[in-house]
Amino acid sequence: MDDRRPGRAGPAGPQGHRRGHHTQDGRGYVSTHEESRLARVALTWLAEPGTRSVYGLVNEIGPVATLELLLDGGAPQEKLRDSVAARTRAGDARAVATESLRRADRLGARLVTPDDDEWPMTVEQLRHLRLDLPGKPRRVDIETDPPLCFWVRGAWRLDEALERSVAVVGARAATPYGLHVATDLAYGLADREWTVVSGGAFGIDAAAHRGALTAGGLTVAVLACGVDRPYPLGNTALFDRIAETGLLVSEWPPAAEPLRPRFLIRNRVIAAATRGTVLVEAAARSGATQTTRRALALNKRAMVVPGPVTSAMSVGAHEILREEPAARLVTGLAQVLEEVGPIGELAPVPRGPERPADLLDDDARAVLESLPRRGALGVDDIAARAGLAVRTVLRTLPLLEELSFVVRREDGYALVASAAGRS
Amino acid sequence: MDDRRPGRAGPAGPQGHRRGHHTQDGRGYVSTHEESRLARVALTWLAEPGTRSVYGLVNEIGPVATLELLLDGGAPQEKLRDSVAARTRAGDARAVATESLRRADRLGARLVTPDDDEWPMTVEQLRHLRLDLPGKPRRVDIETDPPLCFWVRGAWRLDEALERSVAVVGARAATPYGLHVATDLAYGLADREWTVVSGGAFGIDAAAHRGALTAGGLTVAVLACGVDRPYPLGNTALFDRIAETGLLVSEWPPAAEPLRPRFLIRNRVIAAATRGTVLVEAAARSGATQTTRRALALNKRAMVVPGPVTSAMSVGAHEILREEPAARLVTGLAQVLEEVGPIGELAPVPRGPERPADLLDDDARAVLESLPRRGALGVDDIAARAGLAVRTVLRTLPLLEELSFVVRREDGYALVASAAGRS
Repeated sequence: MDDRRPGRAGPAGPQGHRRGHHTQDGRGYVSTHEESRLARVALTWLAEPGTRSVYGLVNEIGPVATLELLLDGGAPQEKLRDSVAARTRAGDARAVATESLRRADRLGARLVTPDDDEWPMTVEQLRHLRLDLPGKPRRVDIETDPPLCFWVRGAWRLDEALERSVAVVGARAATPYGLHVATDLAYGLADREWTVVSGGAFGIDAAAHRGALTAGGLTVAVLACGVDRPYPLGNTALFDRIAETGLLVSEWPPAAEPLRPRFLIRNRVIAAATRGTVLVEAAARSGATQTTRRALALNKRAMVVPGPVTSAMSVGAHEILREEPAARLVTGLAQVLEEVGPIGELAPVPRGPERPADLLDDDARAVLESLPRRGALGVDDIAARAGLAVRTVLRTLPLLEELSFVVRREDGYALVASAAGRS
Repeated sequence: MDDRRPGRAGPAGPQGHRRGHHTQDGRGYVSTHEESRLARVALTWLAEPGTRSVYGLVNEIGPVATLELLLDGGAPQEKLRDSVAARTRAGDARAVATESLRRADRLGARLVTPDDDEWPMTVEQLRHLRLDLPGKPRRVDIETDPPLCFWVRGAWRLDEALERSVAVVGARAATPYGLHVATDLAYGLADREWTVVSGGAFGIDAAAHRGALTAGGLTVAVLACGVDRPYPLGNTALFDRIAETGLLVSEWPPAAEPLRPRFLIRNRVIAAATRGTVLVEAAARSGATQTTRRALALNKRAMVVPGPVTSAMSVGAHEILREEPAARLVTGLAQVLEEVGPIGELAPVPRGPERPADLLDDDARAVLESLPRRGALGVDDIAARAGLAVRTVLRTLPLLEELSFVVRREDGYALVASAAGRS
């Protein structure tokens, strides 16, 4: 049995994860909740977030057994074995993880794992996302599985902060035009009670965070480094304000450095955690355009603000508009709201390709049929009524949630039809 | 029999139309070539160009008989009858037409009709074009049938000048950004030996003409008033330069005023006569956006240059890009050339919806089959070989030409495959 459980009981604040929970993992090893959390942190240190082979193992045998297997040199992939060996020479994975957790405690940050109520289920859509990026060589597959954990600074529940969110991303070397548009859009979104998500970088990202803060709204910075040393340093005051009223989020532990490849890995979370991505200014083939392509790969709304064709900072934006028929040109707040759905609509029907229930596999249909017309069910009850293993139910629910068939509530999962009455 | 004949014999310069040719029209009335030309001019004075009922009559019984019918008060449509009656009270249609032809002669302009070799067959695509324009009321149908004649100033043959042409159109109240982009694009197009077609207005139109002139290229201004009094007056020097090296073209006779509705009527010719239209800056729902929508309705390449979303002069451009999936965002010359086809390609395969020969009607297929593998045939020969009426062949050829099945040459019509060897 998987040692992950979706939090689904009781009122849970930011620190409301359950502790001391015992689980038996795939090898019959009984691990505590704390051991499992430590293992996720250690695994993130041993291999970069999103590494498919690690995610696959955690999914199959749980984080504690995966960590043991890797530390024993038993990783099935040579590349992963080599990478783990190199890291292990640099330090003891469990000791590093323990120190990370202590450091986080000292600075008021917390670890959030899929065990916690506040885990944002939307990132589970990243499972087996393969992203083909145009460039040279023509197609590069990037493995971008879901995160094993998040480090979070700020008072909001992570899932609630991201529930109704839009990403506003773009160039660091933005022009006054781009900064103006990003600030304006973010202000408007925050004013309509949308969370503005961005990457905390100079330029468009910072303008988006600032616009949301100015509106007194909620903004989330998803970082590619530790939440205790947000990068870039020049945005330190901004990061402090975000942590006070919104959230700083990272897959990397405190003290982690903003290495270049981490920005691309981070971008997948921005795309997955939000309902849509607005691209405001981007140089050709830049990271910001890749966030937009990830949003498209996830069947999210991908919105692009055009600019002067004479501006190098709009080349990437125009590239996307020319190359991706699903990307939508937007010129202002109203058109962005039109894309992401009106406020108050809790589970908008996805506007991508139709996916009627007929197209679901047998397991997914069994789960749907097990749910009552009114009210919610916990995972164990769903499994019992559907005649499925708990793991199968856990694997199926994120997809059903993403497709707006079910909605996750504090008391379990409910059909979207009945969920409409939720206050 | 129709009294129109496509010019297809002998070397023809700008003034090379055949004179003194006798034709029997649908009522058995024998009219001279000159009578027929005079009738077209008179009809254009009696009813605005593009009026469907007039065009339909001309097509059926010829211009001379149509003029007689209308002057006798015999127009089948009440609205047309009223309009003719009002014009007739103001003057004698034949006398007005004679005076127009005299005035044109004095200023070195000429009349071009479908009888002439230089008639641009592309405008025949306007036959029964119905254009639905968004606005209030939601859908307005504008009747925009082909012109009955053109008035032309300049040394080029009209058909040759338009053969490989691109329209560059846009706002009068253009910004420096738009003027820069339009000038640049037109310069590049002219430099690659594309004719730049526009409407001679202030702003983008003028910038496009000037860009082409600066490159020493060919530019054509299609006017909504007489070629002797081009509007606006502020562009007089520009119009003189265009007439010296390119062409001034109008459906309206010399001295005709640039009445407001005429600009929209004129725009259909710009869309039809060119291989594609580039829109550079346009206010919301402006005339320039309507030229682009006409190009789309004609299955032509419709290209749009985006701009800052903060600029009122790009609102119309972004509107089109959002509303018309077939409109293509372009950021520079290379992308425009990619749309309209490489230079040197005489008959590019249209990149719109596929239209294989299977989709043609029986008449069109019979015409295709009548053509030899090599060499060209005149209309009479095609009719004889296909077993069709000359009128049917004349109706069918423009479509086959537009779809690149046949090409019009000086010695008649040829299959495109064999036309590839043309020097």
